[in-house]
Amino acid sequence: MRMVDLIVKKQQGKELTKEEINFIISGFTNGTIPDYQMSAFAMAVYFQDMTDNERMEMTMAMAESGDQIDLSAIEGIKVDKHSTGGVGDTTTLVLAPLVASAGVPVAKMSGRGLGHTGGTIDKLESVPGFHVEISEEKFMELVNKNKVAVVGQSGDLTPADKKIYALRDVTGTVNSLPLIASSIMSKKIASGADAIVLDVKVGAGAFMKTPEDAEKLARAMVSIGNLAGRKTMAIISDMSQPLGRAVGNTLEVEEAIETLKGNGPKDLEELCLVLGAQMVYLGGGAESLEDAKALLKEKLTNGEALEQFKIFLEAQDGNPNVVEDYSLMPQASITKDVKATESGYITEITADDIGVAAMKLGAGRETQESVIDLAAGLMLHKKVDDYVEKGDVIVTLYANFEDTAEAEKMIQQAYHYGKEKVEPVLIHKVITE
Amino acid sequence: MRMVDLIVKKQQGKELTKEEINFIISGFTNGTIPDYQMSAFAMAVYFQDMTDNERMEMTMAMAESGDQIDLSAIEGIKVDKHSTGGVGDTTTLVLAPLVASAGVPVAKMSGRGLGHTGGTIDKLESVPGFHVEISEEKFMELVNKNKVAVVGQSGDLTPADKKIYALRDVTGTVNSLPLIASSIMSKKIASGADAIVLDVKVGAGAFMKTPEDAEKLARAMVSIGNLAGRKTMAIISDMSQPLGRAVGNTLEVEEAIETLKGNGPKDLEELCLVLGAQMVYLGGGAESLEDAKALLKEKLTNGEALEQFKIFLEAQDGNPNVVEDYSLMPQASITKDVKATESGYITEITADDIGVAAMKLGAGRETQESVIDLAAGLMLHKKVDDYVEKGDVIVTLYANFEDTAEAEKMIQQAYHYGKEKVEPVLIHKVITE
Repeated sequence: MRMVDLIVKKQQGKELTKEEINFIISGFTNGTIPDYQMSAFAMAVYFQDMTDNERMEMTMAMAESGDQIDLSAIEGIKVDKHSTGGVGDTTTLVLAPLVASAGVPVAKMSGRGLGHTGGTIDKLESVPGFHVEISEEKFMELVNKNKVAVVGQSGDLTPADKKIYALRDVTGTVNSLPLIASSIMSKKIASGADAIVLDVKVGAGAFMKTPEDAEKLARAMVSIGNLAGRKTMAIISDMSQPLGRAVGNTLEVEEAIETLKGNGPKDLEELCLVLGAQMVYLGGGAESLEDAKALLKEKLTNGEALEQFKIFLEAQDGNPNVVEDYSLMPQASITKDVKATESGYITEITADDIGVAAMKLGAGRETQESVIDLAAGLMLHKKVDDYVEKGDVIVTLYANFEDTAEAEKMIQQAYHYGKEKVEPVLIHKVITE
Repeated sequence: MRMVDLIVKKQQGKELTKEEINFIISGFTNGTIPDYQMSAFAMAVYFQDMTDNERMEMTMAMAESGDQIDLSAIEGIKVDKHSTGGVGDTTTLVLAPLVASAGVPVAKMSGRGLGHTGGTIDKLESVPGFHVEISEEKFMELVNKNKVAVVGQSGDLTPADKKIYALRDVTGTVNSLPLIASSIMSKKIASGADAIVLDVKVGAGAFMKTPEDAEKLARAMVSIGNLAGRKTMAIISDMSQPLGRAVGNTLEVEEAIETLKGNGPKDLEELCLVLGAQMVYLGGGAESLEDAKALLKEKLTNGEALEQFKIFLEAQDGNPNVVEDYSLMPQASITKDVKATESGYITEITADDIGVAAMKLGAGRETQESVIDLAAGLMLHKKVDDYVEKGDVIVTLYANFEDTAEAEKMIQQAYHYGKEKVEPVLIHKVITE
């Protein structure tokens, strides 16, 4: 088999076999296929796309390119959730205890990574004492005992995907549906998920700019998952404004706790219920999506979800009292109100700009070496659909330094005003098969 | 400027500017743009094509990437001819003295290269004493004096093209019209041509398999040449059988001499007249293509073209007596007749197979290190349109070893027979603008 022939085969729009795809992925991973052939191949894929089967085989080849997590020691169906990224996305913090309280195991492997705010692990580290440095055995034991635990990513997962992504980034092939879909799904499968729930974000602040593109990506991933024997569902949710009100680490933990108490922002609660229902249903915790959602609502109302969160924190040495006393978490020395520059209905809050503002305040990492300020971030007091008078406070920002002009500028840039009331859409589509 | 942005621009089908194309070509040549970005770019070009202007700018950037030959010391318009390659293509040997005899300077730079038979230089070295190792000054002086000289390629012409071609070869992007066209034209322009005549071959034995594809390539190159200020014309000529009867080095020199005497194969003579007419017309030696062709016919008839050939040989220390005595050139020790295996009309002679047969007999180089046997080759006694009885001699082969079974097998494979008479087409199209 010669790589150049496989490049031409894809260039001509023909379907590659499992063996051919394995040859490409393993050859590129071990270095026998050079970068310049892989980048030409990726560009051919950009133009010619891949069939459902090719996408699945590509995903599996990448999943098998490195370490694979074996979660079989955990009882039950392990359902993983993935979000294509957004700003102020506190869902994981809510979903982990919420779904666990419904009896479905949540074995969460998470990273730190770059971004507007920290990853799930960074956020949880706002809780004094909490840590994710636990052994694999301890992790499995905790999930079996408490139905929920979070561990830092270890091992060399999907090296093929890492290498391909780095190449795509510099060769104009990031924006290829089959490559995006297989990249995401390979990581989920290598992480040991039996079933997968996907939250595909759409809007100005998301990778997918239109509902149509988002749906294509969602359907591509659902198809890959199901062909690979992992039951997969997806929703398409809105990112034309940040989710909830909090953006930052401590701030998002507070918001998650409020949501688990039943007092959270309505959009965040609703998204958690819809995603959680898919997780519980796929995890075998309910007969239907409707039953699953009703069950989760009950867990929010009767306090079991919140109780589960405390158990989870305590099991990983976190102080469960934060649930009642937010001041136990890092607090910012400076808070500042940002005010509306005009009167009118808020029509859009560019999530990207809000994310950058949070990062400028110290809530996220610009480089791998950046140190996160867990107390930093911002709270959105006004969201799409709200009417404001010029001078009303729209955002409060939290920082540990004085000069926040840059962040304020980004916040002003994020807010768009109009004469007409805009009804925000939260969930564009639910894809169950 | 970032290469990744230019890759994406081309991927999106947008037109690149002169500055952007120069950035790509010079960056790739000097190594600041890596192979993996160039191969992705080439694949994007494969799918999105290039505009006429992009093609011209790409050609000029490649022409300017290395040494450029300055022929300004030669009086008159320097017209170069290029053939996209074929088998038994003796045209250059005929055209050089023929066009020179019409007063248009022929300053031929030629290579040895790989292939079925040697290059023009190898062929000419069948003439005892003839050599191309002359200085640049001597070369110019000879062209000014005799209107014709041949010199070996020297200097580092179009390094960008060499580097891009090597990459295309292993990344599935050889077969891209704008890349083929700019590759060919960059070499002609770097070689100092003021005007260019192109012979695009079409058929089973050629790179272009259909007249439509050949016409696209021809028009692409003519457009590049004219946009670059080099008057360019083209013809599309047939390669569904080898041109003329001789394939080999000494054999083709003999055939060229016969043609210059007016006794050559009719297809070779006609092709030389048509190509030569374009050369003479573009070189300012005639008022119209018709006048030019008539002038060249006269030069064949009155012996001036042959005389010019003798002058040319002598000027580069070749023995001009070969014109009267072919035995002065290397002779094969073995000749063998190959016979028709069936009766019928000959419908096709796959030029590729004939070429490989000639190479097997020693007429060409399989690798750079191969030593050419100047005496080896073959003569086609029967061509398309001829009727043969089983057992008739179709080919005589010339070699200096006994076991010619492999070559004979290729010859048999090349000949196709049928019940119907097939009228061969020599020139599919003439493109003058």
